[in-house]
Amino acid sequence: MPIQRFPENPLMGPSDVKPSRPDFEVVCAFNAGCARLGSEIVLLLRVAERPAHGPDELVAPLLAPDDVSRGLQVLRVRKDDPDCEAIDSRMFKYKGRLYLTSISHLRLARSANGKNFVIDEVPAMLPEVHDEEFGIEDPRITPIDGKFTINYSAVSRHGVATALAVTDDFRTFERRGLIFAPDNRDVSLFPEKVGGHYACFHRPMGAAFGQQDIWFASSPDLLHWGEHRFVCGCRPGQWDSLKVGAGAVPIKTESGWLAIYHGADHRHRYCLGCLLTDLEEPHRVIARSNEPILAPQMDYEREGFFGDVVFTCGALVETDGRVVIYYGSSDEHTCAAETTVQELLATLES
Amino acid sequence: MPIQRFPENPLMGPSDVKPSRPDFEVVCAFNAGCARLGSEIVLLLRVAERPAHGPDELVAPLLAPDDVSRGLQVLRVRKDDPDCEAIDSRMFKYKGRLYLTSISHLRLARSANGKNFVIDEVPAMLPEVHDEEFGIEDPRITPIDGKFTINYSAVSRHGVATALAVTDDFRTFERRGLIFAPDNRDVSLFPEKVGGHYACFHRPMGAAFGQQDIWFASSPDLLHWGEHRFVCGCRPGQWDSLKVGAGAVPIKTESGWLAIYHGADHRHRYCLGCLLTDLEEPHRVIARSNEPILAPQMDYEREGFFGDVVFTCGALVETDGRVVIYYGSSDEHTCAAETTVQELLATLES
Repeated sequence: MPIQRFPENPLMGPSDVKPSRPDFEVVCAFNAGCARLGSEIVLLLRVAERPAHGPDELVAPLLAPDDVSRGLQVLRVRKDDPDCEAIDSRMFKYKGRLYLTSISHLRLARSANGKNFVIDEVPAMLPEVHDEEFGIEDPRITPIDGKFTINYSAVSRHGVATALAVTDDFRTFERRGLIFAPDNRDVSLFPEKVGGHYACFHRPMGAAFGQQDIWFASSPDLLHWGEHRFVCGCRPGQWDSLKVGAGAVPIKTESGWLAIYHGADHRHRYCLGCLLTDLEEPHRVIARSNEPILAPQMDYEREGFFGDVVFTCGALVETDGRVVIYYGSSDEHTCAAETTVQELLATLES
Repeated sequence: MPIQRFPENPLMGPSDVKPSRPDFEVVCAFNAGCARLGSEIVLLLRVAERPAHGPDELVAPLLAPDDVSRGLQVLRVRKDDPDCEAIDSRMFKYKGRLYLTSISHLRLARSANGKNFVIDEVPAMLPEVHDEEFGIEDPRITPIDGKFTINYSAVSRHGVATALAVTDDFRTFERRGLIFAPDNRDVSLFPEKVGGHYACFHRPMGAAFGQQDIWFASSPDLLHWGEHRFVCGCRPGQWDSLKVGAGAVPIKTESGWLAIYHGADHRHRYCLGCLLTDLEEPHRVIARSNEPILAPQMDYEREGFFGDVVFTCGALVETDGRVVIYYGSSDEHTCAAETTVQELLATLES
C-alpha cells in the first residue's frame, strides 16, 4: 500500500463544527482545500448544513433568488406531496425542479501539526450571490503569485459552475466571479504558469453524450480560460468507469505533472488515483493508475452521509517529497493519509 | 407579421450541393453563417453528408480517432444488431456510445443579391482534428478587428464543444482551438468590445440540473473566456420551454443589444425570437419575445430531415435598418426572411 491513513482519522466531522445559525444542524464537514499559512496548516472545509425538520418533510435551504440580501431561506415540502420526488440523501425534486437537502459554506480550520485542528466558529465564506443559491462546495487552494487562489463549486438552479476567490490571509476573500459556466466542477489550478499561461484541469459535465471527463485549459489572467484540451475520460469496467475529476493541486515532478484525481464507478464508489502528464503539454497523459491509490475501506469511508466515498480537494507536499492528502470520507468527515511523491510515481510504473 | 419570408425559399437544399466524395450523399445544407465579402454576400453552409447504405444498416461517418490523417471513415452496423439502438434521424447508439448518422462540414456559397447563390464544389472546412471526430456544425461569422471570426460546433465522443477559426478571404481558415469545452454550442460573438473586452453569448448544456440556458462571457483575446453570467433560461409553458440558444450576431441598437435566438419547446419545435439586453451589461435582459418572430409554418419548415424547425446562425443588417435573417428549415434547407430592426424592436414592446 503506497499510502497510510492517519490513525487519528477522521480528523473532523459534523459534530465538531458549530452551525452557522441556531436553527441549522451541521451534517457534513469534508472535501477541504488545504494550504500553509505562516507556521500553520489551514483547511478550508466544506460545511454542509440543513435546517431542523420533521420526519415527514424535506427541506431545501437556499438563497432567495429575488433578494439574496435576505440571506438563507428554507423551502419545506411534505414527503407525501405529489409534487415531491425523493432522489437520494443529497437531493430531491419538487415541481420538476432539483433541490439540495443541505447547503454548503466554507469554514476555516487551523492546525500546527496537520492533525489536530481548531475550527473557526463562524464561516469563512457563505453563499451570497445568485450563482451560489444552493451553496458553495469543494474548495481547492492554489498559492499563485503570492496570493491564495481558491476555486470552488457555485451551485444554483442553473447548475454547478466554478467560481474564483482570492485571499492573502483567509480572513477576507475577494470574489472574482465564475471562471467556468455550468456544469463544470473539479477545477484544479496549477501552481505555476505552463508555457506562459496559467493552467488548470477542469471537468465539464455535458448532457449531450453524458461525458464527465478531465480537460485542460489555459488562461492569461486566471479569470478567462480557453485552449481546452481533452485529458482523460472514464474507463469502462474499471474503478473510474462513471466519472473522473481532478482533485489536489498538480505536483510538479521531474517525470511530469502528478495529479491526484477521483474516479467513480457505476455503483457510485469514489476512489483516488494518480495521473502523470507531460510537463510542457499537461493535457498529454503519460501514465494513470490502474488500481486506486486509496479506496473506501474503513468504516468512516464506507458509511456516512453518502457512503463508499473518498474524495480529495487538496494535498500538501513537503520538500522531502512527503505528501499529506486531505480527503473527505463518505461525504461527511475530513480525513488524511500520508505518502510520498516517489511512492505515488512508483504506482504508475507498470 | 414583423417578418417576410423570401418567396424564393428554400434558397438552397441538399440537392444543390456536390458531395465531398463520390460515395457520400448530401442530406442537409442549412444553418449558415453569413457575411459581406467585398460586393458579395457569402454564406458558410453546414453541409451534412452520409455514406450510401442499405435499408437494414445504420452508418456513422467519422474521423478515425487513432489517426485523423486517414480522413473520414464509416462505421456500419446492422439495425438488428442487439448492440444497436436507434434514436432518431440524427443519431443512434452502438455498444452504449452515441453516433451521428451524418457528418457535417462547412461549405461556401456566394451571391450578388443574397438570394441566388453559387455553391462551391468543394468544402471550405472539413472536420480534421480529434475534437471534430463527428463533424463541424452551425457556423457563426462575426467581423472583428478586420477579420472574419468564425465559431462553430466541434462534435466528438467528448461532446459538443465550440471552436474558433479566422479568415480574411474565406479561402484559407486558421483554426484557433476550442473556446468552450463540451457541452457548449450556440455561441454568438458580439461585433465589438463591450467594456473593453470581447463579448459573446453562449449556451452551456449541463447534465446536473439539465439546463440549456443562454449565458454571457467576456474575453481579452477571443480565445480565453470568463466572467460568465446567466442571461436567460427556458420559460415553462411557452414556445421556448425546453432550450434556448443565441443565433445571429447581436445587433447594436440605441435601445440595447438585439439578439435573434432560437427556442425549442417540449415537442422539439424550434422557433426564433428576440432578446434585447443592456448595452453596457449585455447579460441584463431588457425585453424578450413573448411570441416567436418566426415559427415553422411553411411545408419546408415543417417537414424534412428533422421537421418543425427554424434555426438561425446569422443575419445581415443594412445601414437603413433592413435585416435579412438566414435560417435553416427542418434541419435540411437554407432559407431567408426579411424584416427591420425597428419591426423587431416593436415586437418587444408589450
